[in-house]
Amino acid sequence: MSGVYDVIVIGAGPTGENAAQRAVRGGLTAAIVEAELVGGECSYWACMPSKALLRPVAAVAEASHLRGVAGARLDVPRVLGRRDSFAHGWQDDGQAEWVKNAGIELFRGGGRIAGERRVRVGDAELAAGHAIVVCTGTRPAVPPVLAGVSPWTSREATSAQAAPGRLAIVGGGVVGCEMAAAWQALGAEVTLVSRGRLLKRAPEFAGDLVERGLRDAGVDVRVGVTVTAASRGEPGGPVTITLGDGTTTEADEVLAATGRAPRTEDIGLESVGLTPGSWLDVDDTMRVRAVEGGWLYAAGDVNHLALLTHMGKYQARICGDAIAARARGRQPPVTDQSSVTCVPQVIFTVPEVATVGLTAGQAQARGMRVRVVGYELAHVAGASLFADGYTGRAQMIVDESSKTIVGMTLAGPGVAEMIHAATIAVAGQIPLDRLWHAVPSYPTMSEVWLRLLEAYGL
Amino acid sequence: MSGVYDVIVIGAGPTGENAAQRAVRGGLTAAIVEAELVGGECSYWACMPSKALLRPVAAVAEASHLRGVAGARLDVPRVLGRRDSFAHGWQDDGQAEWVKNAGIELFRGGGRIAGERRVRVGDAELAAGHAIVVCTGTRPAVPPVLAGVSPWTSREATSAQAAPGRLAIVGGGVVGCEMAAAWQALGAEVTLVSRGRLLKRAPEFAGDLVERGLRDAGVDVRVGVTVTAASRGEPGGPVTITLGDGTTTEADEVLAATGRAPRTEDIGLESVGLTPGSWLDVDDTMRVRAVEGGWLYAAGDVNHLALLTHMGKYQARICGDAIAARARGRQPPVTDQSSVTCVPQVIFTVPEVATVGLTAGQAQARGMRVRVVGYELAHVAGASLFADGYTGRAQMIVDESSKTIVGMTLAGPGVAEMIHAATIAVAGQIPLDRLWHAVPSYPTMSEVWLRLLEAYGL
Repeated sequence: MSGVYDVIVIGAGPTGENAAQRAVRGGLTAAIVEAELVGGECSYWACMPSKALLRPVAAVAEASHLRGVAGARLDVPRVLGRRDSFAHGWQDDGQAEWVKNAGIELFRGGGRIAGERRVRVGDAELAAGHAIVVCTGTRPAVPPVLAGVSPWTSREATSAQAAPGRLAIVGGGVVGCEMAAAWQALGAEVTLVSRGRLLKRAPEFAGDLVERGLRDAGVDVRVGVTVTAASRGEPGGPVTITLGDGTTTEADEVLAATGRAPRTEDIGLESVGLTPGSWLDVDDTMRVRAVEGGWLYAAGDVNHLALLTHMGKYQARICGDAIAARARGRQPPVTDQSSVTCVPQVIFTVPEVATVGLTAGQAQARGMRVRVVGYELAHVAGASLFADGYTGRAQMIVDESSKTIVGMTLAGPGVAEMIHAATIAVAGQIPLDRLWHAVPSYPTMSEVWLRLLEAYGL
Repeated sequence: MSGVYDVIVIGAGPTGENAAQRAVRGGLTAAIVEAELVGGECSYWACMPSKALLRPVAAVAEASHLRGVAGARLDVPRVLGRRDSFAHGWQDDGQAEWVKNAGIELFRGGGRIAGERRVRVGDAELAAGHAIVVCTGTRPAVPPVLAGVSPWTSREATSAQAAPGRLAIVGGGVVGCEMAAAWQALGAEVTLVSRGRLLKRAPEFAGDLVERGLRDAGVDVRVGVTVTAASRGEPGGPVTITLGDGTTTEADEVLAATGRAPRTEDIGLESVGLTPGSWLDVDDTMRVRAVEGGWLYAAGDVNHLALLTHMGKYQARICGDAIAARARGRQPPVTDQSSVTCVPQVIFTVPEVATVGLTAGQAQARGMRVRVVGYELAHVAGASLFADGYTGRAQMIVDESSKTIVGMTLAGPGVAEMIHAATIAVAGQIPLDRLWHAVPSYPTMSEVWLRLLEAYGL
């Protein structure tokens, strides 16, 4: 079997699917190669199942903090069943059908680059008329200290069919915090071990709020400690974890939530002079800089710009359009303007954290003179209506030379849908004195925008 | 008693409070005159108590549409108790304290304009060095057909200490729909009678969704009919309402939710040549156009621009700043740019409706060539995660010459906090090809922004 396609995409996660789709929309032919499930990590072992687990948890938490609402509780088997349906029972028929209907040829198997514009999939050899796009994403980076105890990774944490009695989570980033919130609520006794403070890429107040939320929910949070040893006496038996402070903790399962590594070990990078296992550095149309000829692209997590599904899809649109344009001898219609300076992220912990753009430190490192303005969400009428004893905070980072917002963080119950306003303000580079005319509706929590502008002095 | 103040504000609702506060911030002295409770309609008989009633209703509805959450129900006495605390037990001590701390002099009593720059309050005569600001808001406009049956108005509907057995609501606007959602959930058998379709100022799909939501909750919705007669046999007894289609309905209470009239009958307008009971037409700094000398301002509902608390407060900021600037011989620093073309509104029904800017018809009437783009929220992953069987829709109105969004409507559960993104896009006049770089976070409902832009063709 062989074939020639204008574009060959390796990896059929959301990024790969979108890159192929945009290329097809631009009049090209496209093939997509996938070794596992079409739909990728996001659909089966990340965004979708994790949020399916967390949404009922958040709804019960919200209802429980509202005088006048009684009796709300989780029905754990039904939560897990709902999660299963969002993961489509880990079957990719629907996604494969979508690929077919989008006019994309699907090849199942591990795709390996075999020299310029060539991809091998099992016995088949495919040739790309214009471009190959690597969208293989990432895999969990399991630290050596946990390698011997058969730890859970994000896959098991999002697909487990029952809560373990005791779950130790190593890593205080997004996956660690989200899974701690989920499994504690679903019945596990969770211990969360973090080398530094929680959510260290977000402003400190956000990590502090999440830490308090986890403790209130019953999670044993241990910050500022490392794991020095781990052992599992017998397969299926409990794991004993030794921490840097000399204490030990025992758990039935251990989740390694200590970061991600690129899935590029086995995709033939060496055939084009690249190092297997490396991240792929790209330009603003997702072209891999180190490869001559401009035929190799990498979009999504694998290029290390922003490890988030929506940013991968954004890059996929840019990359698919760029390939289609270049195939016609034209300039790409649009280039990446957001993957570094305007990346939004929602962390679905209880309470939620939502961020976009630069932190104060990042902005200063880019030479900006910034002003940081904060406001307690509890002082906004909409927040006190939303939940009794509402606790949360908003922080905006203003570039003082352009008088525009370059970053925003919101932490508190129900803030997930509020961040897009900030994303638009950051991407739109709207001056504060124009934002002043964007009146927030009363009494919503978005009124915090008015308060932030007042606190700034407008 | 008498006194001279730079600014005298008549009406201590949120608009009056903010106008006085901004004038004081600008270095002026200010007095505020209030015949009823300091804090105004919004604090005691509108926004705050109505949203305090509706928030638990929405939370139970959300929890009930989520497989995995069980048992959520309303505890009606506690809902009403929570509402009481948001209305501060209808005591204004806290607000009066705020006024005092803001450096504003409070006069209790009905304020009447007594010629140029003069206000009478009971026996006191106050003189304004620079300006008088009318912020008296509106009162319910009870139709003659209901005048004889002691109907509820928005005041009783938001402050009632128990649900009536049967509640007939006349009027299918915001107050009618919100109070139907609230009292049906709190135990009344509600009949909602509307002359036209529900929420007639919003796009039709929004009214249809709310109608379906009310019917699903058990409300007897009668659209396209008028009330031709109403009678209450004895005080406290049931009311019989006759409709234009010849049917009758009986209720224990009737809510007149048929619109608002300006509270200007008894504020001395005749002393400056204006007609008592009229709306006060203003320029873009809230100056009443019909009065010579530029000393009379009117902000908030009473100027009929946009009958919403947040727009009144916006106008108050503009007006207070303008008065302070003019007192120093300067030009106003900012003028009203939103009260006509960028008014956001959230309707806290179940499901919610949120709108901003112009409808397609309004835009066309202003000479714009528009394109209407719609998208089903149910097709967004974030919405299906938010609620099982999610039903909702987003619609954006694009001005084809500037390629900017001039209007947006969202209808569905949990959309309240999503509208501010659109308000910023409309106020910021951000071209669609720049909005394309504002990436919505996955999987939030805000992903509908991506879908709307794709549907537009980007």
